[in-house]
This record gives sequence, structure tokens and C-alpha cells, in this order.
Amino acid sequence: MKQHEFVPQVPYGTRDFLPREASKKRAVEGELAQLFANWGYDEVVTPTIEYLETMTVGVGNDIDQHMFKFFDKSNRILALRPDMTTPMARVAATRFKDSPSPMKLFYITNVFRYEQAQAGRQCEFYQAGVEIMGASEPAADAEVIALAVESMLKSGLKKFQIGLGQVDFINGIMEQSEFSLIQRQQIKHAMVTRDLVGLGEILVKSSLSQREQTLLKHIPLLHGREEMLKQAYSMVENDKSRNALDNLATIYQLLENYGVSQYVDFDLGIIRDFEYYTGMVFEGYTPGLGFPICGGGRYDTMLNSFGMNCGATGFALGIERVLLALERQGIESTQSCKDIYIGWNKENLVEAIKQADTLRQSGYSVELAIIPESCAQAEESRKSKGYAKLVYME
Amino acid sequence: MKQHEFVPQVPYGTRDFLPREASKKRAVEGELAQLFANWGYDEVVTPTIEYLETMTVGVGNDIDQHMFKFFDKSNRILALRPDMTTPMARVAATRFKDSPSPMKLFYITNVFRYEQAQAGRQCEFYQAGVEIMGASEPAADAEVIALAVESMLKSGLKKFQIGLGQVDFINGIMEQSEFSLIQRQQIKHAMVTRDLVGLGEILVKSSLSQREQTLLKHIPLLHGREEMLKQAYSMVENDKSRNALDNLATIYQLLENYGVSQYVDFDLGIIRDFEYYTGMVFEGYTPGLGFPICGGGRYDTMLNSFGMNCGATGFALGIERVLLALERQGIESTQSCKDIYIGWNKENLVEAIKQADTLRQSGYSVELAIIPESCAQAEESRKSKGYAKLVYME
Repeated sequence: MKQHEFVPQVPYGTRDFLPREASKKRAVEGELAQLFANWGYDEVVTPTIEYLETMTVGVGNDIDQHMFKFFDKSNRILALRPDMTTPMARVAATRFKDSPSPMKLFYITNVFRYEQAQAGRQCEFYQAGVEIMGASEPAADAEVIALAVESMLKSGLKKFQIGLGQVDFINGIMEQSEFSLIQRQQIKHAMVTRDLVGLGEILVKSSLSQREQTLLKHIPLLHGREEMLKQAYSMVENDKSRNALDNLATIYQLLENYGVSQYVDFDLGIIRDFEYYTGMVFEGYTPGLGFPICGGGRYDTMLNSFGMNCGATGFALGIERVLLALERQGIESTQSCKDIYIGWNKENLVEAIKQADTLRQSGYSVELAIIPESCAQAEESRKSKGYAKLVYME
Repeated sequence: MKQHEFVPQVPYGTRDFLPREASKKRAVEGELAQLFANWGYDEVVTPTIEYLETMTVGVGNDIDQHMFKFFDKSNRILALRPDMTTPMARVAATRFKDSPSPMKLFYITNVFRYEQAQAGRQCEFYQAGVEIMGASEPAADAEVIALAVESMLKSGLKKFQIGLGQVDFINGIMEQSEFSLIQRQQIKHAMVTRDLVGLGEILVKSSLSQREQTLLKHIPLLHGREEMLKQAYSMVENDKSRNALDNLATIYQLLENYGVSQYVDFDLGIIRDFEYYTGMVFEGYTPGLGFPICGGGRYDTMLNSFGMNCGATGFALGIERVLLALERQGIESTQSCKDIYIGWNKENLVEAIKQADTLRQSGYSVELAIIPESCAQAEESRKSKGYAKLVYME
């Protein structure tokens, strides 16, 4: 085999899944599709490409610089979808307007974002997620969180934790101030990126009382169980923040009934990086990963932008992150087995073809050699290809 | 629900798969993945985006105007892959150079081409396919064709036919002439598009004898069984064309041993629209579709362009075309069943959550209502959502 000069590469932030990984990916995705269907969710597949204006309605402008954009032949701007919640909202609002509400939908597919690439953070990556559209009740939020827990268990993960927050807790505090929309976004951005210095600088210039400033700076530290909720309750006086805490308490109670509350902590510093969240938000963490393995929350205004006035909630799980976590935690998935390799000498291809057919019909996975081999060569092939058994036709 | 003015659309030539179709798509893809694995093929997943130069090496310039192209942040040209054979060749040549040969690989994914969109011809569409890389033997071609037949059967199709040709039959005739490369491409293009008038005009200007001109014009009519091969053999004298016919006879004999020859006719007019084919080529047809449902062939030079000198053969099946054919032929796939809808009145969400858990653990698919309903409302929901049974908690 001769090596030429042209060595093709893949674009920045993209990658190939070779057989071992591709097969794990297919296995995990298959398990998740089965799980979602068992919980009554219907799959939707949307185009990889959307009009930029559709995506902007959903994800907001923050994500704009992270989108892969190009023109169609009529010079309209297209974008590779950076997220699936927006396309799902588009589908719900345009195709399911007259369907019984709420709708429970799922997807398992790829999304695209320009990012600094690193393990677990690529420019093209795969997500499995669900959306409940047409429900404002905490019961919907609880179901989504419970299903996120089940998804991680079904993927083979054993150790993980969910941090549960509520964006209205912070919104309530900020509404008492004279912050402009831009300042609010700066504060949220500082919190999302855990930039406490930047946060302090914005707050110093604000009209907030010292007590409120201290509170905002303290928010990233507000995590724990139910007693923390009570503590946070005593720290705020506005209705919005207190309702947010009540909402979390209600959701938590339902999660106890789902039998998954041991996986859930409150973390009022969780804000998430999309602008569209309006209520509870959560992120899942697992040992060995420096970023969330899943995340989601309530987004009650997005469907309105698409002409359908109703609440919605959902989550997405990162497939590559699941695979990476399984690997780093040394969890082996049951590999698809390779049963039989059939070798043959010069005269016996015809017999080998028939043998392969018979064995496949009996349910074995069978690779048939393409070229004649000696028995020793065939045994070598069997081993290097990873088949359990050799059948040799001579 | 209020209708706003902004009604988002999907880009030209793309579409949503709503639940009924998405579930059929997942079912067919799952069956095919299982089939390919049972025949010893390993899955590979490649990036949706490739560098344009990588794609051009494979598919040639003909497809250039049909590619979605854009720039990355370093101003290199990216393309949405218009085909999967080229990325698979890239993977084989760069990642599997030292693997045991031949490699048997499969993929199930989407590709992108600017086309006049119509039913069964979209700008984004899904393909399932296999490649055998590192084998020049007719045994590889026969396996690929046999697997194409099995794929269609596994997808649920009952009536289909494969047309089998060999590009060297025409190449041999053309090499006897003084055609330039461009004229050869024009002739091939005229044959691919069945433009017999255009074909005649090119031939009239050529140095071919009247007999050879008549032969070339006659090629699109050369289809049938083994007796047609003999007829064609008597019509040509050059070695290349005669070797091509011998090659087809050998492949056909192997297909008889695979037990699939009843699905195969010879059709020497089949050329395929990619420049990379070098040997046998085939297309599958099924009633009610005006275009091939699958196609493939041998491409012995492409891997060389990627620095790996070996032969290869493969095919791809159009997933949407399978779904369309199944629908047009009235073939119902076994739908994923929806077992139980759980409704509840105001007091009983907690009981309903526990009931859902119990029933799911017993293997039922269960949708839990998000909002309280009367028993009559719950029965209405069950019906409209398509569940077999209602469990009502009151």
C-alpha cells in the first residue's frame, strides 16, 4: 500500500466514530429510543439545516456567532441547527397545532456549534432529548427530570448527580433593581461562566442594596437539599423568587415519588446558556467529566414566538459525553458479538456462500471471506477480526 | 392558541419526519443495522461536514454544483457530504491502513445535494449502505449485490428487481475511438440521462464506424438474462468489453449460489451518475417509484486517490425511498405498540406515578397524563393518542 502526499483531514471540531465506538453509539441510542417510547414519547426527525431566522427565534442572539451559516440559492441564510429544542418547537407549533395537548416528543440526532474543541466538546455532536409541549405544570418538569435520570441509568451510568435550579429565583432579585436588559444579561453571563470577579464589578455599579449585592454574589454557593431551600427562602422577599423556590419544592416532592430524588440536589447557581429558559433548569454531572452530561429546563415563551401560546419543558443528553463517561469510569457495554468467520480454499466459495446463508438463518453473525485462504490464514483472519469461531470449507 | 404572523418554514428540499414516519424510519434503519452486522460489517460514523477537496477527490467535479458549500473560520471550503462512499474511503485509507484486508464497513446516515426536490428526491436524504474495501474479486461484488437484495427484503419490500451493468463494456468500445475525455463524459452523461438524441449527435461527429455507432446507440436496449450477455459478446471484439461481460457472468453465477439471481437482470445501459465507478454497477427498482431505490458498484481507483492502492465495491439504499415504496405498495410495517395511557384525577398524581413505574417495569409502554382529567376525558386522550388501554386512578 502506497502512501501519497494528500492526507485528507476532517474539519476542525469534527470526528469519525470507528467501529468500536460507532457500535456503542448505536447501542446507547437504541436503548434511549426504546426508553423514550416506553414513556410515551414520539420521535420527530427535523432537517439538519434550518433558516437562520427560525433558529434565532428560539436560541436568541447569544448563540449566533456559534452557528455554521451559509446561503441557499435564493440568498436566504441557512444554519446548521445548533440545538434541537428550537426545531422541535417549530414542529410542534406548525405541524401539531391541533394535536391533543400536551405533546411528548423525542429526538436523537446531531447538532452543530463552533466551539473550542476538546474531548467531550466538538463542533458536531449528538444529543438525545425529549420535550413536553403544552404543559405548564410541575408534573411535566418532574417527569422530564425523572426521565433524564432513567436515561443515564439506561445508558449504563451508575454514578451521577443532577443539580436543579430555577431562573426565576435570580430574575426576581434582579427585577427589584434598575438593571437594564443588557446588564441582566451580563450578570447571567457572569454566573453561567462562574466569573465572580466580573459579577462583582457589575454589581458595584448597580443600585442594589449591599444586602442584595451580597445575595447575588452568594447565589452560586446556594446548593444543597431541602434545608437550603428554606435558607434561600429567608434570604429573599419578592414573590417571584419565593414562587421559584416553591416550584422547586413541588417538583422535588414529585421526584421523591418517582424514586429518583437521591440523584437530585438543588443548585440555585445553575442558569444554563440558552436565553430561552423561564423556570426550573437542571444539569447532570458524572465523575470524570468536566462539563454537564445532560441539561434542560422549562421554556414557556419559545412556542409563543412560533405562534402557539403554551408552556414547555425538556432536556437533552450528550451521546459522546455518555460514551466518554462510560469509558473513563471503566464501564463496559455488552458488545455486539461477532460469531463466525467462514474461510475457504480455492474450490469452495460456493459451499462457503451456502454455509454462510445457513448459519445466518440460524441467527449467527457471519463474515464470509472474500478471497481464498489457507486454514492457518483463515484462523489468523478470524482472530484479527474478532470472531468467536472459525468455520473452514476445504 | 393564537396564530402569529411568523410561520417558520423548512429550507427548500428538506422536511420533517413526523412520529408515524420517524418511527418507521427508525425501525427500518434498525433492521438494516442488524442485517449488516449479521453479515460481518462494522459501522462507521463520519462528520456531516467534509473539506471540499476531500469530497472532490471522491465524487469528481460533476457533483460540485450540487454541493452545499461554505467557509470555516480559516476560510477553507467545507461541504455537506453529498455521498458516503467518499468519506468511507477517506476513513479506510487514513484510519484503517493497517487493518486486515478486506474491510467490510456500513453506514446509515444523511447526505445532502442541491436537487430539484420531489417525492423521493430531497436535498437532504438518508442512506444505508455498505462498502467492501481491499478486494478486487467478483466474490466481493456478488456479496454486495446479495446484501442489497437482503436489505430490500429486510425492509419489507416484496417486489423489486436489480439491473446489473458494467461500465467497462462501454469503456472498451469508446477506447477504440478517438474520443477526448470530454466527449466520453458527454456520451456517458447522455446515457445516464437517457438522452438518445444528444447521444446520436455526439456519435455522428465521431470517428467510430457505423457499426460501432449503432452498437453504442443500442447499448441502452441491452437488457435481459444470460442469453443477452452472449448476444452482447458477439457484438464487440475488444478485450475490455468482453472481460466486462465475463465479469458479469461470474458475478451472476455467484448470485445463483446466494439464491438471489431471480431478482437480477443484466442492463448494460446502467452507468450511474458518479464518475468513480470502474466495474460492475447496479440499480434496484421497485414498483411505484420512478427512480432507483438502491444502487452501487465497483470503484477501484478512489482509494488510490487517498493513498491506498486497492479495489472496492459497495451499495447504498435510500431510506426515504424505501418508506415511500412501502407506502405506495400498501405494505404496513409492524408499528411500535402504544400500550397504556394513565389518567388521574386531582388527588392521584402520586399514585399514577407509581403505577406508571410498575407497568413500565413489567415491559409496557406507558404514557402518564400531565394534567388531571375526568375518566371520560382520559378515555378521549387515550383514543386520540392511540393507546390500547386506559388505566384511570381515582
